[in-house]
Amino acid sequence: MQIEDTVVELCRAARQAARALATVPTPAKNAALAFAATGLRKGAAALLDANRGDVAAAQRDGLSPAMIDRLALSDTRIEAMAHGLEEIAALPDPTGETIARWRRPNGLEISQVRVPLGVVGVIYESRPNVTADAAGLCLKAGNAVILKGGSEAFATNRAIAACVAEGSAAAGLPAAAVQLIPTTDRRAVSALLAQRELVDVIVPRGGASLIQAISEASSIPVIQHYAGICHVYVDSAADLAMAERIAVNAKVQRPGVCNAMETLLVHADVAERFLPQVAEPLRAAGVELRGCPQTRAILPAIAIANEDDWRTEYLDLILSVKVVDTLDAAIAFINTYGTGHSDAIVTDSYEHAQRFTTGVDSAAVYVNASTRFTDGYEFGFGAEVGISTNRLHARGPMGLRELTTYKYVIHGSGQIRS
Amino acid sequence: MQIEDTVVELCRAARQAARALATVPTPAKNAALAFAATGLRKGAAALLDANRGDVAAAQRDGLSPAMIDRLALSDTRIEAMAHGLEEIAALPDPTGETIARWRRPNGLEISQVRVPLGVVGVIYESRPNVTADAAGLCLKAGNAVILKGGSEAFATNRAIAACVAEGSAAAGLPAAAVQLIPTTDRRAVSALLAQRELVDVIVPRGGASLIQAISEASSIPVIQHYAGICHVYVDSAADLAMAERIAVNAKVQRPGVCNAMETLLVHADVAERFLPQVAEPLRAAGVELRGCPQTRAILPAIAIANEDDWRTEYLDLILSVKVVDTLDAAIAFINTYGTGHSDAIVTDSYEHAQRFTTGVDSAAVYVNASTRFTDGYEFGFGAEVGISTNRLHARGPMGLRELTTYKYVIHGSGQIRS
Repeated sequence: MQIEDTVVELCRAARQAARALATVPTPAKNAALAFAATGLRKGAAALLDANRGDVAAAQRDGLSPAMIDRLALSDTRIEAMAHGLEEIAALPDPTGETIARWRRPNGLEISQVRVPLGVVGVIYESRPNVTADAAGLCLKAGNAVILKGGSEAFATNRAIAACVAEGSAAAGLPAAAVQLIPTTDRRAVSALLAQRELVDVIVPRGGASLIQAISEASSIPVIQHYAGICHVYVDSAADLAMAERIAVNAKVQRPGVCNAMETLLVHADVAERFLPQVAEPLRAAGVELRGCPQTRAILPAIAIANEDDWRTEYLDLILSVKVVDTLDAAIAFINTYGTGHSDAIVTDSYEHAQRFTTGVDSAAVYVNASTRFTDGYEFGFGAEVGISTNRLHARGPMGLRELTTYKYVIHGSGQIRS
Repeated sequence: MQIEDTVVELCRAARQAARALATVPTPAKNAALAFAATGLRKGAAALLDANRGDVAAAQRDGLSPAMIDRLALSDTRIEAMAHGLEEIAALPDPTGETIARWRRPNGLEISQVRVPLGVVGVIYESRPNVTADAAGLCLKAGNAVILKGGSEAFATNRAIAACVAEGSAAAGLPAAAVQLIPTTDRRAVSALLAQRELVDVIVPRGGASLIQAISEASSIPVIQHYAGICHVYVDSAADLAMAERIAVNAKVQRPGVCNAMETLLVHADVAERFLPQVAEPLRAAGVELRGCPQTRAILPAIAIANEDDWRTEYLDLILSVKVVDTLDAAIAFINTYGTGHSDAIVTDSYEHAQRFTTGVDSAAVYVNASTRFTDGYEFGFGAEVGISTNRLHARGPMGLRELTTYKYVIHGSGQIRS
């Protein structure tokens, strides 16, 4: 069979499964997740075996040690995946919720009811735990999921997906609720991205180039989880001790993630006091600073930050620093160079806080807190598919609720339109 | 300048305008709409003049009388547009609403706040009132709008857009809040559909082929307002007098719209009584019936409905009729042949109503009411951009609220992540 045909058939089966899943009661979905967790634990030896093959091939192909580490499974990592599925089972089922209900003058009772999205396509790079996480989240929200992982993790992903699919089937869910595209052929991705009638949304997980390529090729809506070029702005009215704690935390607590700070903005009025104050703990933590001319007038030893720096998500112990003359300049800078992810102001001024939260056009806008809190768990949502930098449908942490849509159910007593 | 460059420049200006619009207070937006309405009324002579040119060209090009009627302006139509803008001004501003607010154990206060979507591209066919309606709705929700109308209405649309843009500027809103693509060149559409970074959503208004073409070509999410193949299912437990009223209303009250019924499903247990009963008023209203073999056994004079009929949105006084043996068969039929728009059951059985509303996967699912109520005004939302048959972001009537997104505003007191 042609690859395109295989993909279309798989998408058709997913659409069919999604219809059935939409009416599956919560306990059955939770049982599926529990069975899948058990399956991962019981199948650990087989999973490790499949993974060894992938790792060996990756080594032969000369993949970087970092990539091989991301690819490699261990008993601990398998247990973490299994536990993750159990955590998803413990989360409340988002579907069935009545979001709003009202009565019209003609007596019609209109309810807006939360229902599954339908069919979700997840396209991701090497880390194989995404297979279990994404499948678990989609399943819990009542969606059928089509998984397409990186080719270097193909055997591993197939083994994980099989555990989840078997658990799902053991709980009586449709067999096509969880499907992995059974090929590493790249044409399968193009074929998937063309199934606008059968797939409701594509969620890419991976680097900017993957997301970019998928967004360009897809006629299905894509929920992007793009780079976070996050800012902390230290206002003229900031508590500088607090600003120091927040800036250091936002940069160094975990520099490799999307909600870490990449650029520090400092109001000119406090720059002379604050920049030396914050530079010390940052340098002590191994952070390389790159500054604008005004910053370098205060911290002459640091490198120049150029236009590229303002547009770079370092994901590393590097920080660009800029002095701004006004709050409005800070807001405009963030809206120009930021990626609409997470940005913070440190200030004791109520009015400045208001202007910042209104003016900054980002998914998460903080006052007096670290940008590092943009996260499904920290927001209280539980596990997440990612942090959406889209404006449509889901913005910010994308948890179970963001994997749903709604329908209107209208109860009447014979109403007709005149 | 190349057309592509013109479009990119226009989109950049729209993004800039959207940033400013997001913080414009409600009274200024309402003033813009009021000024635009006044502008339409005062400029009526110029509008009619521009329109006469378009109509004359359309006649020369041999457009159908129906198309020319849709294109032609009149004083009444101009007044309706102006009044429509005033109605939009009177609707509540959806932005600024706190959708949810909660406190985390660490003291962070998280608010989910409704904000404008950003930049909306509206691509539409001849009816020129869409220019005013779509611009007004986008503006009220704080969005910048880029309009691309049909080439046969180019001069008319340009004149209408100018009135709205002037009103908007008179109220102090950014000049690029409302822009019309200043060319009839089709390459402008392709260029617009490629501006993924600058345009947040595309809303096509028009026939299925327009929507299809745009959805295929666009890398920007498209909110589809597809055909409505709507069903009324008359259950074994239906009140047949009510079923007759609803079926007739859903078919004949306004057959040319997307929420009109195209297929009638009748349970086998009541078919012999109900079909002759409903056939009479339908025929009296000029409806041509096409039936399945079981239907034709009861109504032998009618034509055969074939597979194509079940998939056709007649938008006309034609109705396909099918007898089904079970409620589940009705649900499966609707989920197979429907377009997920609006479907109704007529029943006195609570359990059947429950199964139908849960099982039918449509934007609006009715019990004992006509499908004709799927409409922004009938739902109580006011004016709408259309009825979305998408599952992502907006489903069903798409009013002001559906032209917004949200952001999270997080207030802390120095929280850092450990």
